[in-house]
Amino acid sequence: MTRQRAQDDKAITALKSLLGQRLSLSKSDLALHGRSESYFAPMLPDAVAYPQSTEEVSKLVAICAAHELPVVAWGTGTSLEGHSLAVRGGVVVDFSRMARLVALRPEDMDVTVQPGLTREALNEELRATGLFFPVDPGANAALGGMAATRASGTTAVRYGTMRDNVLALEVVLADGRVIRTGTRARKSAAGFDLTGLMVGSEGTLGLITELTLRLHGQPEAISAGVCAFPDMGAAVAAVTDTIQLGLPMARIEFLDAASAAAVNAYAGMDLPLLPHLLLEFHGSEAAVAEQSRLFGEIAADHGALGFDWSVKPEERKALWAMRHNAFYAILATRRGARALVTDICVPISRLAEAVEATQADIAAGTIPGPILGHVGDGNFHAVLLIDESRPEELEEARALSDRMVRRALALGGTSTGEHGVGMGKLDFMPAEHGDGWQVMGDIKRALDPKNILNPGKLVPQGD
Amino acid sequence: MTRQRAQDDKAITALKSLLGQRLSLSKSDLALHGRSESYFAPMLPDAVAYPQSTEEVSKLVAICAAHELPVVAWGTGTSLEGHSLAVRGGVVVDFSRMARLVALRPEDMDVTVQPGLTREALNEELRATGLFFPVDPGANAALGGMAATRASGTTAVRYGTMRDNVLALEVVLADGRVIRTGTRARKSAAGFDLTGLMVGSEGTLGLITELTLRLHGQPEAISAGVCAFPDMGAAVAAVTDTIQLGLPMARIEFLDAASAAAVNAYAGMDLPLLPHLLLEFHGSEAAVAEQSRLFGEIAADHGALGFDWSVKPEERKALWAMRHNAFYAILATRRGARALVTDICVPISRLAEAVEATQADIAAGTIPGPILGHVGDGNFHAVLLIDESRPEELEEARALSDRMVRRALALGGTSTGEHGVGMGKLDFMPAEHGDGWQVMGDIKRALDPKNILNPGKLVPQGD
Repeated sequence: MTRQRAQDDKAITALKSLLGQRLSLSKSDLALHGRSESYFAPMLPDAVAYPQSTEEVSKLVAICAAHELPVVAWGTGTSLEGHSLAVRGGVVVDFSRMARLVALRPEDMDVTVQPGLTREALNEELRATGLFFPVDPGANAALGGMAATRASGTTAVRYGTMRDNVLALEVVLADGRVIRTGTRARKSAAGFDLTGLMVGSEGTLGLITELTLRLHGQPEAISAGVCAFPDMGAAVAAVTDTIQLGLPMARIEFLDAASAAAVNAYAGMDLPLLPHLLLEFHGSEAAVAEQSRLFGEIAADHGALGFDWSVKPEERKALWAMRHNAFYAILATRRGARALVTDICVPISRLAEAVEATQADIAAGTIPGPILGHVGDGNFHAVLLIDESRPEELEEARALSDRMVRRALALGGTSTGEHGVGMGKLDFMPAEHGDGWQVMGDIKRALDPKNILNPGKLVPQGD
Repeated sequence: MTRQRAQDDKAITALKSLLGQRLSLSKSDLALHGRSESYFAPMLPDAVAYPQSTEEVSKLVAICAAHELPVVAWGTGTSLEGHSLAVRGGVVVDFSRMARLVALRPEDMDVTVQPGLTREALNEELRATGLFFPVDPGANAALGGMAATRASGTTAVRYGTMRDNVLALEVVLADGRVIRTGTRARKSAAGFDLTGLMVGSEGTLGLITELTLRLHGQPEAISAGVCAFPDMGAAVAAVTDTIQLGLPMARIEFLDAASAAAVNAYAGMDLPLLPHLLLEFHGSEAAVAEQSRLFGEIAADHGALGFDWSVKPEERKALWAMRHNAFYAILATRRGARALVTDICVPISRLAEAVEATQADIAAGTIPGPILGHVGDGNFHAVLLIDESRPEELEEARALSDRMVRRALALGGTSTGEHGVGMGKLDFMPAEHGDGWQVMGDIKRALDPKNILNPGKLVPQGD
C-alpha cells in the first residue's frame, strides 16, 4: 500500500464518520458519478458524498485537504466537457441534498438558493410571483453547476449568462474556510470581483454552497416564431440587421438544414430543408407584435420564406420543445451514435464565415455534423455523430472540433462560448490565453496549493 | 543613503534612459499627480512617466520590478477615494499619451481603445456611427481608469457598469509580461474571468494598456423628465414600482430637498424644495412616450407633483447638465468647503430606510450633507461639506461616512457602489468581505509578489 493510498483510506474513514450513510461507496453510485453526458471514458471516484449543509461541506473539504484527497463538485452531471469526471479519483460531492430555495425577495427581484436546486425547479417555485430566472442551457441543470461552468443558452442574448445573473455566492475554499462573495446590492466597486472569479471556475477554486441570483419580471406578452432562409449567409445577415436595429430579441436560434431534417424526422414537423431562425420577443402585447412585424420585414429583405409567429403559449412551447429536443433529434438520425458536441463563439461579423467553413469541413469528411446555435451571441455548436465502435470516427470528430476552435480563435473568438473547458478544451487554453493561462495557474496555486479541487481541469497541470 | 533609496535612484536612471523627456521629475508634475479630487492629503510620487506604447509600459514595469519601485496608474485623476495617490512614492504612469481609438467595428458594436482616451472623446469619435458608449460616471474620466475602478454612474440601471461593458483587456503584469484577457466574442466559458478580475482591481494586479468595449445603438428617441415627491419614501416607492413593472429606465436619479435647493441657487432653477427623481427613457418615439406616460401614472400614485417630460434635446441636456453639476452646486452652498463624498449601495427594498437614516444622522450633526444618487441601482451619495481649517469637521464627516457604510453592510449592501476602495474604504474591507479579503490578498501576492503595483490600496497590507 502506497503512502497516498493509506492517506486516501484514512480520509474515507474520516468522511464516513462525518457523513455516515451519506458517504456512498456503492459501485452503482460510483459508476453513476463517474460518467459524463459526452464522449469521455468513465472515470470513477473513490466515494460519493451527499452533504446536507455548508458546515458539512466545509468539514468534508478540510478532511480531504488534510489527506490530499481530490474533491469534485457534482450538480446534475449534465455538463458536456467532462467537468465532473474524477480524473484522479477522490470524492464526488453530490449536491442533490442541498437543493432548497433559501430566501425569495420579490421586492428586490433576487433569490438565494442552494446549489443543488435545478433551474426548472426554481422557476416552478417562482411561478406565482411574476418573476423568473432566465438562464436556460437546455438541460435541467443544477444552479450551482450552472454558475461553476458559466452556463448560458438560448436567452443569453437578452438576459445575459450566469456571469450576469449571479449577485453573490457562498463558497467553501480548499482549506474548508467558508467565504461570502458579493452582496445583494445591484452593483459594487468594493475590491476584486470574487463572485465573477468563482463563476466559471469549474470547481477548481472552491465549492459553491449557496447562490444569490437576479430574477427578472415575467413579460406581459411573448411572441415566438420560425423562419426559413435560402442560405446561412442570409440568416446571419438578418440576425446582424436585427441586432443593429436594436430589436430586443429574447432568443434567436439557428438550425441548419441538416438540423431541420433531423427535427422533422424526430417530431413529425415539416420544416423546409433550409437554414432556420427561431425567435422570441418579450414585452407588452403591442411591443412584441411590433417587434415581430419588424423582424418579419428584415427577414423578407434577406429572402426569408415568411415569418410565422404567434403569441399563443401552446405554439411557443411546441417551438422551444422542438429546439430543446434538437440534440436528441440529431442523435436519433444515426442509430447508436454518441455525440461530440463542439461549442465555439465568434464576433457576430465573423459568424457566417465560421459556420460556412465548419459546414464545408464537415462535408469533406465522413461523419454527420448538423449545426445549431445561439446566433445572437455568435455562439454555435456542431453535433458530431460518432460510432463508438470505430475509434477513427472519434479521431475525426476531435480533429474537426480542433479546427473549429483554431478557426474561432483566428476570428477573434473563444474556444468555448458556454460549455466550458473541462477536459475537452484544456488543450486550447495556451492558444487562447497565452501567458494569461499561467496567471490562471498562479491564482489556482494561491487558492488551492495542494491542488485538491477538481484536479486535472482548466489550469496548467504542474504534475 | 538607504539600500532602498539607492535602488530607487537606479530605477529612476533606468527609466530616464527608457523614456527621456517623457519621465518627468518636475515639482509641478509631481504635485499635479500627487493630489486627489477628494479630501486626502497630497502624496507625491518620485517621478511621472508618460509612456507611448504597451512595450514602453512593459519595460517600465520590468525596471520598477527589478528595483522594487512602486508603480501607480493614472488616467485623469478624477477618482474620489485617492486611488492614484502614491502612498509609498514611486512612479505615477500617466496614460495621456496613450489615448487613441485603436479599432472601431460598428458591425460588431465594439471598439478597442487605449486607456488614456476619455469617455467623452470616445463618444465624440462615435458620433457619426449611430453607436455610443453608455457608462457615465459624471467626470470625463479616462476609460482605463473607469475600468480599473469599475465605474458606473447614471446609466448603469439600463446599460450596466464597466463590469458589463468591458469585453477584453490588454494588461501589463507586475513582472512586465503582457497578457490579453477575454476576446471579442460576446460570451465565453474558457476559464477564469481574468477580464472581470482586472476590472475593479484599481491598478493592484496589472496596468491596463488596451480595452475592448461594448457599444450600444443610439436610441431613436430619448425622453427625459423630472418629478417632485412629497417625501423620500414616496420617491423610492415610485422607483420600486417602476422597476417591478419592467419599465426600461435608461437613467433614474434622486436629488433630496437640500440638493434641489443647491441646484436652484447654482443654476437659477426653481425646483420645489422637495425630493426629486430625474428620469430618462431610450427607445422608439412611441415607446418612450408610452414609458413616460406610464411612469407619470406611477409617480401620481405616489403623490408626485406632476411629471414634466420632453423629447427635446435641449431640455434633456439642461436636465442632465443640472444633474452633473449638482456636485458643484452643492459645493458652492458653502464657501471654501471641500467635500467628502460617500458612496454606498443597498438592495432597493432597503433604500428608503438607508437614505432616511442617513438624513437623520446628518441632521443630528453640524455639517451639511445633501444626498443624491443612482436610485435604480440602490446607490446613493452624501456630499459632506467640510471646512478644511476645522479638523473636527473632517472627523465628523468620516464618522458619518463610517456609519453609512456599517448601515449599508447591515442592510445587505456594499461599502461602495461605484467610487471604489482606494484609500477611503480600505478599513471596511474586513467587515464587508470577511475571509474573502484574505483571498484577495492571496491573489495579489500571487500576481504581484513584490507588491509594486499601487501598494497600500485595496488588499490586506502585510507590512
